Amino acid sequence: MSISMVRSQSNPPSTMPDENVISVSQALRTRRSVRAFSNQYLDDTLVSEILQTASAAPSWGNVQPYRVAMASGELCDEVRTALVTKYRQATAVKNGSLMKKLTALLKGGVLPDGDYKTLLKYPRELNDRYFATGKGLYDVLGISRDDRKGRESQMARNFCFFDAPTVLFIFCEGSLGPYGPLDAGIFVQSLLLAAQEQGVDTCVQGSVATWASPLRKHFDVLRSSCSSKPVHYC
Amino acid sequence: MSISMVRSQSNPPSTMPDENVISVSQALRTRRSVRAFSNQYLDDTLVSEILQTASAAPSWGNVQPYRVAMASGELCDEVRTALVTKYRQATAVKNGSLMKKLTALLKGGVLPDGDYKTLLKYPRELNDRYFATGKGLYDVLGISRDDRKGRESQMARNFCFFDAPTVLFIFCEGSLGPYGPLDAGIFVQSLLLAAQEQGVDTCVQGSVATWASPLRKHFDVLRSSCSSKPVHYC
Repeated sequence: MSISMVRSQSNPPSTMPDENVISVSQALRTRRSVRAFSNQYLDDTLVSEILQTASAAPSWGNVQPYRVAMASGELCDEVRTALVTKYRQATAVKNGSLMKKLTALLKGGVLPDGDYKTLLKYPRELNDRYFATGKGLYDVLGISRDDRKGRESQMARNFCFFDAPTVLFIFCEGSLGPYGPLDAGIFVQSLLLAAQEQGVDTCVQGSVATWASPLRKHFDVLRSSCSSKPVHYC
Repeated sequence: MSISMVRSQSNPPSTMPDENVISVSQALRTRRSVRAFSNQYLDDTLVSEILQTASAAPSWGNVQPYRVAMASGELCDEVRTALVTKYRQATAVKNGSLMKKLTALLKGGVLPDGDYKTLLKYPRELNDRYFATGKGLYDVLGISRDDRKGRESQMARNFCFFDAPTVLFIFCEGSLGPYGPLDAGIFVQSLLLAAQEQGVDTCVQGSVATWASPLRKHFDVLRSSCSSKPVHYC
């Protein structure tokens, strides 16, 4: 998953440098997933501070079964471009003729290559919530249900991290059953709330893990040499 | 997993009833996993408030793929007793003769019956951290490495939730790959920090999920009728 980050325009940080006064419940109540970012990327020092705060997150046996990679500037743009290209190619194939599908399959590089399945099939109760959330978003954006092109364009925005200037990528140990992702989730929420306290808006995206190859190219943690250490991109 | 909760003795709640002043970073920095509880159980209102605050946790598509059950008083004692009995039986068999092992296997009810494997095999790097954390704990408790009985007694304390008067049990949707536990983790950390803000100490335990049958008996969410909705005890 990725966490897009930017200096907030609506949620300025505390004016007292040594004392952040946003409470836990305020942070939980006011945090929103932001889907439009300015191009001001964050100081490395600020990101380090947020990571430092989040690193107090508890984990089973304190093993901290996760890793973080960061991209901003050119590197972020490279990953973004590669992911959007993957998405556009896959969409073109999906909408294309049977012949186009077969050709693409033979050529390769279009099917998802992520470590986990990101096209989730929800049971009824959860599906209702998923549908309501999606409808809410598309209603706000003024994209109707039958506007396929509009929906695809919006979906492509996910793969460019909504133009966020700074993006973190989260990886988790793959050999611990649910306990790797569970501990990673505890860490992720620590990070989101620490960011909120620092006046940094965020968006967490699981969908970007559909393709891992654009990240494998850039981050050691996902290179093939890691196959003996199953750290997965989640 | 379980979350044991108690009114903190070292971390009193804010004295201003309408304004909780503990910051996110303070909460993260000061929270400790507490392994000794008094018998004062928490008001339902306070637990509800903590759950309410935590329910602002984000999840993919806002599907909130988790459920919570709560036990206090007699119910909590029943679950505690059943789990400790399971642990003691399993330990006796483990330490017993081959004949004892075979008899127990034939009789049944001793082997783990949880939804997930809780005996984790860590890769080297994580194992070093796990070992260091365990050593730190046993050193503080004054239990030496070769004191098998001492270690087993301490392990049994896990299964009675360190005598905590109020315990929450966390279940997550099992059909979403890592994304069920990941979202559950985001929720769990929201809950832990919301509790910390309210002056409530907590301990998260994955090991208690080794046996699910003592919970199946009491909580609808885990009964066999739920097999069509794979909500797992994690």
